[in-house]
Amino acid sequence: MYTCSLERMTEKIKSFSRFGDTGHGGITRYALSPEDIRARNEFIRRMKAIGAIIEIDDVANVYATLPGTDPSAKRIVMGSHVDSVKNGGNYDGILGVLAAMEVLETVVEQNIDHVHPLTAMIWTNEEGSLYPPAMMASGIVCYDFLPEDVRRNFRYDDMMASNNVLNREDTFGKALDASGFKGDRANRLSPDAYSCMFELHIEQGPILEDAGNHVGVVDCVLGMFNCRLRFYGQTVHAGTFPMPKRQDALFAASQALCSLHEKIDALGYEDLVYTTGEIACHPNVHTCVPDEVDFSIDVRHERADVLEKVLGIVADCADKTWAGCTCRVETMWNRNTVYWDKTLVRYLKEAAEETGVKHQILHSGAGHDAQFVSYMLPTAMVFVQSKDGLSHCEREYSSPQHCTSGATVLLNAVLKADAKRNM
Amino acid sequence: MYTCSLERMTEKIKSFSRFGDTGHGGITRYALSPEDIRARNEFIRRMKAIGAIIEIDDVANVYATLPGTDPSAKRIVMGSHVDSVKNGGNYDGILGVLAAMEVLETVVEQNIDHVHPLTAMIWTNEEGSLYPPAMMASGIVCYDFLPEDVRRNFRYDDMMASNNVLNREDTFGKALDASGFKGDRANRLSPDAYSCMFELHIEQGPILEDAGNHVGVVDCVLGMFNCRLRFYGQTVHAGTFPMPKRQDALFAASQALCSLHEKIDALGYEDLVYTTGEIACHPNVHTCVPDEVDFSIDVRHERADVLEKVLGIVADCADKTWAGCTCRVETMWNRNTVYWDKTLVRYLKEAAEETGVKHQILHSGAGHDAQFVSYMLPTAMVFVQSKDGLSHCEREYSSPQHCTSGATVLLNAVLKADAKRNM
Repeated sequence: MYTCSLERMTEKIKSFSRFGDTGHGGITRYALSPEDIRARNEFIRRMKAIGAIIEIDDVANVYATLPGTDPSAKRIVMGSHVDSVKNGGNYDGILGVLAAMEVLETVVEQNIDHVHPLTAMIWTNEEGSLYPPAMMASGIVCYDFLPEDVRRNFRYDDMMASNNVLNREDTFGKALDASGFKGDRANRLSPDAYSCMFELHIEQGPILEDAGNHVGVVDCVLGMFNCRLRFYGQTVHAGTFPMPKRQDALFAASQALCSLHEKIDALGYEDLVYTTGEIACHPNVHTCVPDEVDFSIDVRHERADVLEKVLGIVADCADKTWAGCTCRVETMWNRNTVYWDKTLVRYLKEAAEETGVKHQILHSGAGHDAQFVSYMLPTAMVFVQSKDGLSHCEREYSSPQHCTSGATVLLNAVLKADAKRNM
Repeated sequence: MYTCSLERMTEKIKSFSRFGDTGHGGITRYALSPEDIRARNEFIRRMKAIGAIIEIDDVANVYATLPGTDPSAKRIVMGSHVDSVKNGGNYDGILGVLAAMEVLETVVEQNIDHVHPLTAMIWTNEEGSLYPPAMMASGIVCYDFLPEDVRRNFRYDDMMASNNVLNREDTFGKALDASGFKGDRANRLSPDAYSCMFELHIEQGPILEDAGNHVGVVDCVLGMFNCRLRFYGQTVHAGTFPMPKRQDALFAASQALCSLHEKIDALGYEDLVYTTGEIACHPNVHTCVPDEVDFSIDVRHERADVLEKVLGIVADCADKTWAGCTCRVETMWNRNTVYWDKTLVRYLKEAAEETGVKHQILHSGAGHDAQFVSYMLPTAMVFVQSKDGLSHCEREYSSPQHCTSGATVLLNAVLKADAKRNM
């Protein structure tokens, strides 16, 4: 068993927090922005310094590879993203890159034997803050890889197509050209050159903290669906129209939202999460009764039958009249639960046990680049405890100790893969 | 008793509907826009043609006056506005101007004797669509008129001050300079030159239609208050944060909105109207639990004690925790019920009775220029039936018959004021 360096992890977290520093605890580091480029250059500088070979693909994904003892062996890759949301924190994404760097640095410093080349990588534009959708670069790389029938059934394709992601020359494309990071398509992650992938990420939830565990070994990314509920009434004047005749779309939406909570909660599934995060109201004027209101609902659970039941409750809203308004329900997209490679999950679990890191098995409720990669390679994820479960905000925090524990588990799981995988 | 001309009213409604015609049934005619200027010029052309004297004041209000037999008598004024909201209809505001024109045209055509000069007028920027607030020009004219103690207690002043209305040189001021309609401040409506004011307007509600009446004699403009309810939670990730620990500000706001309906309805006041027309949600992203949501509530009733009771229910929301969120309630503004001059109301009622126009007494739930004028002069309003109660939309409609009935009532009430008022 090997252990990563607390001191080195602490220094890396601090150093990379400078790139996009907002001055009040967090960062804004949009994909391919000057701040993102500075973080990439620092990654390259440090990886070159320990003897890694740098490659860049055509969507700016960066790969830093330490050769192994067998020149014909496929690479084992670890990575995440360095871009952030607006006023994001110093851990989401970047910690997975720093942990991958830490693994390579530890391997070099401690002269650890490895057969396979080991790669630390940066995925471009995971957040999609400036250029939607999220997980763009892993989506593009895996989209090209996916067989035709899987592509047809995978709903994210529709979303990407509708956002013109694959032909966004005027936006992401221009930023890519200007970045100096448009490399060679031949460098893309592929099953020919890579054997498996690990991603370390912060939990973004409170489960590990509540249980007193430093690290979570992730077994799957939860299945989900996203619907839009639209309510149609009639706008009339706030002062002149009697209450009984009104068709108030905001009252309708509020009633439906409360009713959804009641009915979904009554199902009694503890692990179910659902979120009504977005609302639009027309005309949204204080002296007018609203005539069109719609809100989003995002529902996540491991079991397809549970999602099906909740979708039934959501769809039933369209059968009712709410405050005199009609309702239409649209399913925007959905995905099935993605299970990580069972062998890699076992390596992570064994590594945590053998290094004495307090850990547990966990689902991931959030989407990650690893999810797209799993269509291409055996893939697994490890989570690090998040303070108060917060993320996508400046208060996002994971202690250097927990981050280093995560890197240590990652290192030892990679070495297990290196030693045991038949590749 | 005299009767206005259905043919002439029909022609006027049709002709003025061209100014700002959207091509699908309604108009967009912002204050001081080219469309508004064309409507004003047509008003001036037609009024000059019947011998009226045109005057314009310093905020572009236009006055067309037919001299009476007593040169020392004060004027009787009728008027409304010609500007509209975006995609508004052909009746809100403009009908009051067309009816005033119709009264003068009938007086000239039928050679009706009158002692007092009779004035038809256009108030500038009643809607405040481009330059808030609504009722700007009547507010400015009456603001200057109002005694200091009334100004201090009148909450609209605060709103106007907070919108920098009186020093908006860069917006309304520039439009005014460019319009060619910046006249002389000495021409402003004032108690020295004017004895009383009538405003005809569409009802903007369904009460007259439901009762089968053509015209409503308005006795007051309802008192009102406007509050903002603000909910504060914590934004967390939609996929990773367990339900029981969430503080979801949109769920909180929805619960409070439904609870307000329940509690206010339980008071059992049939005439009460309240509207939650505007909502803001942060960060308003489908994968984030909202942390800040606020919505408006606008409440209107004749009785101050009823408004007080409802305000108590609204204010009580701040004492509760909603879905784990705190709540703050702010009163944005309020006004007491404004009663029209009882003598003028009686003239309108008698005129309706004597001309056989089906009518009833009615409150106004909406604000109108006449409301500001009432601080300066004896004032009253007459409403014309609105089809389906709709307004501020292209489907807004009042039949030519009903519009002409309204003008006839206005004409005869004005003549009663001319004959009987001790001025």
